[in-house]
Amino acid sequence: MTAGDRSPVTVIGLGPMGSALTRAFVDAGHRTTVWHRSHQRPDEPAANGAIRAATLVEAVSASPMVVVRVVDHRAMREIVNSLGDTTGRVLVNLTAGTAEEARDTASWAASRGVGYLDGAILTTAEELGADTTLTFYGGPKELYQEHEPTLAALGGTCTYLGDDVGLPALYEVALLGVMWSAWAGLLHGLSLVSTEHLAATDFLPHATRWLRRVVGSVPELTAGVDLGEYPGTTLGHQAVVVERLLAASRAGGVDDGLPRFLLARVEQAIRRGHAGDGFASLIEVLRDPHSD
Amino acid sequence: MTAGDRSPVTVIGLGPMGSALTRAFVDAGHRTTVWHRSHQRPDEPAANGAIRAATLVEAVSASPMVVVRVVDHRAMREIVNSLGDTTGRVLVNLTAGTAEEARDTASWAASRGVGYLDGAILTTAEELGADTTLTFYGGPKELYQEHEPTLAALGGTCTYLGDDVGLPALYEVALLGVMWSAWAGLLHGLSLVSTEHLAATDFLPHATRWLRRVVGSVPELTAGVDLGEYPGTTLGHQAVVVERLLAASRAGGVDDGLPRFLLARVEQAIRRGHAGDGFASLIEVLRDPHSD
Repeated sequence: MTAGDRSPVTVIGLGPMGSALTRAFVDAGHRTTVWHRSHQRPDEPAANGAIRAATLVEAVSASPMVVVRVVDHRAMREIVNSLGDTTGRVLVNLTAGTAEEARDTASWAASRGVGYLDGAILTTAEELGADTTLTFYGGPKELYQEHEPTLAALGGTCTYLGDDVGLPALYEVALLGVMWSAWAGLLHGLSLVSTEHLAATDFLPHATRWLRRVVGSVPELTAGVDLGEYPGTTLGHQAVVVERLLAASRAGGVDDGLPRFLLARVEQAIRRGHAGDGFASLIEVLRDPHSD
Repeated sequence: MTAGDRSPVTVIGLGPMGSALTRAFVDAGHRTTVWHRSHQRPDEPAANGAIRAATLVEAVSASPMVVVRVVDHRAMREIVNSLGDTTGRVLVNLTAGTAEEARDTASWAASRGVGYLDGAILTTAEELGADTTLTFYGGPKELYQEHEPTLAALGGTCTYLGDDVGLPALYEVALLGVMWSAWAGLLHGLSLVSTEHLAATDFLPHATRWLRRVVGSVPELTAGVDLGEYPGTTLGHQAVVVERLLAASRAGGVDDGLPRFLLARVEQAIRRGHAGDGFASLIEVLRDPHSD
């Protein structure tokens, strides 16, 4: 595949992720133009195979699609505000931010005649392009469909979430929360067993095998959520064991924040009548914490 | 395989898990004797293929190994206290409880000349025997080795944790905490996206795929924990995004307990000098919450 076979792309921002994006586009055979606000060293490996634009205007003129990955939405708007005519360009914003910021930036882009897609990349710069990469996009469907073949260069699973440009940021933060919660739970479990002077390597292989099983149980756990049906071991039964987790944490002098949170929500769900429902009924409390 | 090829087993307690244990031993070809404190219906399917002892003494006399799975340690001791001579028997306690209770019960068993192993089964009654079953045992090594071939009938991965009979209970509660944290994180993420009127089925396939990736990252995340080394995206960088998760939760009217917990611990770790360390450095705070 030569560069001529694929649509040209411009990448603005050459931090770790911007550099990884550049590499992915270059590797997929796109003529890739890069620009970065700060001083660029000529030997910077990130730009290998990419064309360095001398100015921002030159960078944006080089490709119909301009991917922006800078530090935040403010930086993104400052950069793009400094441009002249951008009519007919499509901005694909991969700068992390909130749903609100994405919506504001989309309005701003619309007022300037710039097409706008917002995206979120769930991976590290090092793993971009691997099968495990998850990317999410929101914005006008035709725009997405037009540029999907180019965005596919980023690898992994690419999902269009709909018109709402705020959804990728919401998905990103929700999924990062899922990750942090799983990690925090694991580190809490490790803290607990380490009160018995066990090494991480004693516990972690079991915990990892167990977590794989837990992930495997998610479809079953959540199958009835949209219907308000929550099968599985009842909260009434589990509450006793959550109390045991709290007691063990306190007895071991380990942080009790996570078991306290879990027990409080389990008890709240039980007060709302979910003693006979499974763990997924906690969603009723999490979704609507103040109704009792 | 006929019953005669395998060591006889007695199971005390015929709740859902006790019945599942009985089925597993029967299926593996062990002559299995059962006893349950409450009135037993003669057509109870749980005892299919197992021998019903008329009395507890008869049940315990029938096999060298007696597996007990009743409601709690107190019930277990009441039952076993009602026995006469139990010398030479081995009690395998699969009744859930705390590490302390297991240690107390082991002392009590020792004072009566009864061999004691404590075990924990990480699975549901329905899935007992599947590859995903995790069982943990603690107690005298020779005892475990002697009875391991019989315990293997319960399937899955069977792990001997050492002399300390308290460890299986500690592992169990730690692993259940890992499960609840992962589930709670997932339900919180789902709550967050459902503020945009998305159905669970929109988000969950992505979240499940993502969680598989998160689990895959655990060895990398935790590789340096025993050495106090924490690679990966720094807490300094992640704190900003955890704040965004908290803000998104509040903006959506969703329970903010989990992001508040995460942010508090991330900030605590940063105050202790871990701004440049990865997420696993939270273990230092979780393990020792009051040192700052």
